[in-house]
Amino acid sequence: MASESNRLPVELRRGFYETVFRRRDIRSFLPDPIPDEVLARVLVAAHHAGSVGFTQPWSFLIVRDLDRRQRIKRVFEEERIINAAQFDLARRAEFMALKLEGILEAPLNLIVTCERGRFGPGVLGKTALDDVEVYSTCLAVQNLWLAARAEGLGVGWVSILRNDAIRDIFQIPEAILPVAYLCIGYVEAFPPRPMLEDVGWAKRLSPRALLRFDSWENDSGDGDELARLVEDASIWREIFPPEQWPSERLQQDHHENQEK
Amino acid sequence: MASESNRLPVELRRGFYETVFRRRDIRSFLPDPIPDEVLARVLVAAHHAGSVGFTQPWSFLIVRDLDRRQRIKRVFEEERIINAAQFDLARRAEFMALKLEGILEAPLNLIVTCERGRFGPGVLGKTALDDVEVYSTCLAVQNLWLAARAEGLGVGWVSILRNDAIRDIFQIPEAILPVAYLCIGYVEAFPPRPMLEDVGWAKRLSPRALLRFDSWENDSGDGDELARLVEDASIWREIFPPEQWPSERLQQDHHENQEK
Repeated sequence: MASESNRLPVELRRGFYETVFRRRDIRSFLPDPIPDEVLARVLVAAHHAGSVGFTQPWSFLIVRDLDRRQRIKRVFEEERIINAAQFDLARRAEFMALKLEGILEAPLNLIVTCERGRFGPGVLGKTALDDVEVYSTCLAVQNLWLAARAEGLGVGWVSILRNDAIRDIFQIPEAILPVAYLCIGYVEAFPPRPMLEDVGWAKRLSPRALLRFDSWENDSGDGDELARLVEDASIWREIFPPEQWPSERLQQDHHENQEK
Repeated sequence: MASESNRLPVELRRGFYETVFRRRDIRSFLPDPIPDEVLARVLVAAHHAGSVGFTQPWSFLIVRDLDRRQRIKRVFEEERIINAAQFDLARRAEFMALKLEGILEAPLNLIVTCERGRFGPGVLGKTALDDVEVYSTCLAVQNLWLAARAEGLGVGWVSILRNDAIRDIFQIPEAILPVAYLCIGYVEAFPPRPMLEDVGWAKRLSPRALLRFDSWENDSGDGDELARLVEDASIWREIFPPEQWPSERLQQDHHENQEK
């Protein structure tokens, strides 16, 4: 059967799904250095993301220099104040109590950039949308993030930095877009749930609420088996035998969804 | 050791890396239906991507309706001509000979959208960059793409469609950005190399050429162990024992890089 001939054996699928469900946005790091061999695997995995027209528009700027990281940290502090001002007083206090980055403590910072038109102005797969290469670059970021998790490395994305400041500090030309500023390093532990969920900042949305059917207006999925199954933990039985149930993670998700 | 306490066991890491290296952009599909249980797993994996401020800005529009897909196919044909005009005559002929989508033949189309400010105008992790939620949405796309591959499902991203046309055909409001229009289905086989590499449209870049060190200008990596290792196949020995070497894939990569 077609559906079975190309799928990966169940133990390999389990490896993939474990990586996805155990990945976290990390903001606290151990100082232990990252072996070059491990970082090399993570970068090669990032480089094997798909890209529009096979343009591979990404580059990886390895940031070890502490002086530049201190300058970035100051930019972060400025933007953090701006970010805080977006919230009302109660939420602002909550926001200011959160640790949001590990720029100086992580053994490594890494900037993933995007070069539009790397092979010339014409790009297979690009007409109306100018951002397709940026989208590809984000795919590489996710490969990197997942590979890091598999290797036991935490990754945190610092998303409030200004690109003009990043360009200035790292001499990045105007034609190159800094897409992701990442902190990477080993961690004490990967929390079972996202930190922002744990502290009550936001809740995980029910997957069923994210589905639409053939038209945006049709969000009910009433009677649609798919709408039922995205909230049914039994879909994981094929992948995770009961005694190797991946985590409280999935069970919690299921439990929470049941309550809604 | 920190570096070993949180990493996944080698057989699970292998599952992750196999998924990454075997994923392809697919444009030819078998008509076999996708079991809802399999699609549900793929969607839940997508939903477990990281997102700025845990906003989970994505939605998944499941497209089974053939009328709407025929309208999308016509938009594709218009944009394909525009795309072709970007290339010189020889390359244009090459372009027109390529199969670039499976809109009608795939059993499923799926649109991944992004809703900025889903929980209000203030977003934790968003100040200067308006696109952070779009970046998050792309992370979900990559989770989806990889999960599909693990399940034996091919995914193709049709990136030349106009968003105004997509909005019109699927009644998507102005506030919602269509990010990825995907074709999904089972395949005869996953090619060992990207189609665009196989036909000679573009080459895989050497990973070493994508590295920069502390400053954009410093791209040499001379004497840097990381720069050497990203092109050294021996970094995979820990993950893939020789008899389970994942594919010609990595060996080819290595071989090609050696020739440069």
